[in-house]
Amino acid sequence: MSAGSLAWWNGRLLPLAEIRLSPIDPGFLFGDGLFETLRVDGARARDAAAHLDRLYAGLRRLGIALPEDRCALGRALTDVAQAAPDPVARLRITVSRGTSEATRLIAAFPYEPPGEELYRQGVSAVFHPDLRIDSRGPLAGLKSLSYQANRLALREAEARGAYEALLVNEHGRLAEGSRSNVALVLAEGIFTPPESEGCLPGTVRRRLLERGAIQERPLTREDLAAAEGALLMNSLIGVLPVARIDGREIPVGGSWRSLCSPPGR
Amino acid sequence: MSAGSLAWWNGRLLPLAEIRLSPIDPGFLFGDGLFETLRVDGARARDAAAHLDRLYAGLRRLGIALPEDRCALGRALTDVAQAAPDPVARLRITVSRGTSEATRLIAAFPYEPPGEELYRQGVSAVFHPDLRIDSRGPLAGLKSLSYQANRLALREAEARGAYEALLVNEHGRLAEGSRSNVALVLAEGIFTPPESEGCLPGTVRRRLLERGAIQERPLTREDLAAAEGALLMNSLIGVLPVARIDGREIPVGGSWRSLCSPPGR
Repeated sequence: MSAGSLAWWNGRLLPLAEIRLSPIDPGFLFGDGLFETLRVDGARARDAAAHLDRLYAGLRRLGIALPEDRCALGRALTDVAQAAPDPVARLRITVSRGTSEATRLIAAFPYEPPGEELYRQGVSAVFHPDLRIDSRGPLAGLKSLSYQANRLALREAEARGAYEALLVNEHGRLAEGSRSNVALVLAEGIFTPPESEGCLPGTVRRRLLERGAIQERPLTREDLAAAEGALLMNSLIGVLPVARIDGREIPVGGSWRSLCSPPGR
Repeated sequence: MSAGSLAWWNGRLLPLAEIRLSPIDPGFLFGDGLFETLRVDGARARDAAAHLDRLYAGLRRLGIALPEDRCALGRALTDVAQAAPDPVARLRITVSRGTSEATRLIAAFPYEPPGEELYRQGVSAVFHPDLRIDSRGPLAGLKSLSYQANRLALREAEARGAYEALLVNEHGRLAEGSRSNVALVLAEGIFTPPESEGCLPGTVRRRLLERGAIQERPLTREDLAAAEGALLMNSLIGVLPVARIDGREIPVGGSWRSLCSPPGR
């Protein structure tokens, strides 16, 4: 990232390069906190309200209180997005339990969005055989700083030349990607697993559900084999089609292709 | 902790209070790293070799390389233990994947050991209903910085007045405590779950296995109901008897009582 990026750190705006964290912060010692990833487009943080909704819901579950109110956090998002060095950037909110009070960081980082051709041709994904989302676990649905398993799954997928790792839950049903939500195009419609399957309640997923473009339904491996299309969703990529899963070709045509675009199109 | 504690930080000894971490360290952003907890007794780090064994095995699994060799890390442990402000202390090794190279911290913290009476009377434990150890998961057996679920389980146990949360694996069998290994005294012997059940390979557990004082066997909830005793083991407490599980009294008598003591007795 640019050393000159302006970040928001525990209530103050300052250059990211000047920020230093205590090595006994519970975020570092135990991964005890949450994060959010937003896309900055043209100096504006997209879907800020939806991300703050999810962040606050998670913090309530964890019993972590913030000294600022939501308006102050929203202003901090605006300030950091406006100072982002590039028109398109990745913005991250990080909150840890901290020691005397919660540790809060909002910072923007360079982000290279997927090329237009990926929205047409699709990306490849692989099933991760070992990481199973526990839909009833204490971290289900939280974007926890304890994210190592997701990172390892993504590293393994990338080492196999894939863009994303697909994860199942304890029942063996499709839950989500390591950094995205997933939907399958089936004969009866376009379906994404409900939150009760253990997925993160993503903001793009939420918007598509609200628009009625996709619906919730548990998805089995058989559904996957029958899928006429597959989609990845997150706040950075918007909606990307999947063209291959474990080497098997998936169609990327059909009327649902209109869903595939960067955020906000 | 004492602000004057001497710590080892990426190859240098300096006061812990002077150490500052980058807020984009993958240990903070993603919990991508490992840790070890050792007990310092009389300025000496106990079982350093066993802890380094486990640390290096974990780092190999994660593909994290350290710039120092094992001897240098051992000397750092010695230096930090000798500088610990109290005769008994908790020493923590923290390694994250870092950015250009791994981030390494060894620091000593104040530690109040359990009183003598707890080794006689035992402590209470509660089953944690939600957190299930995935024995086949990518983090099984690793002391990962992604430790939030364990911390939450411990917090809930402590809120219920208990000393430890007991965790089951995906099969519903006893795996470990949130910060300890577990053994049950049964008619046929004293048993602790094998590593294939998803438990952390603890150093005290390892020593008792090597001595033949305990043996490995999967443990069911029925075993627990039949147990004539229960033990918690970790490098800080040594071996503590459990006197109550979810309010039910467990005997703390019997010949196995001789196992219950602080480390190294």
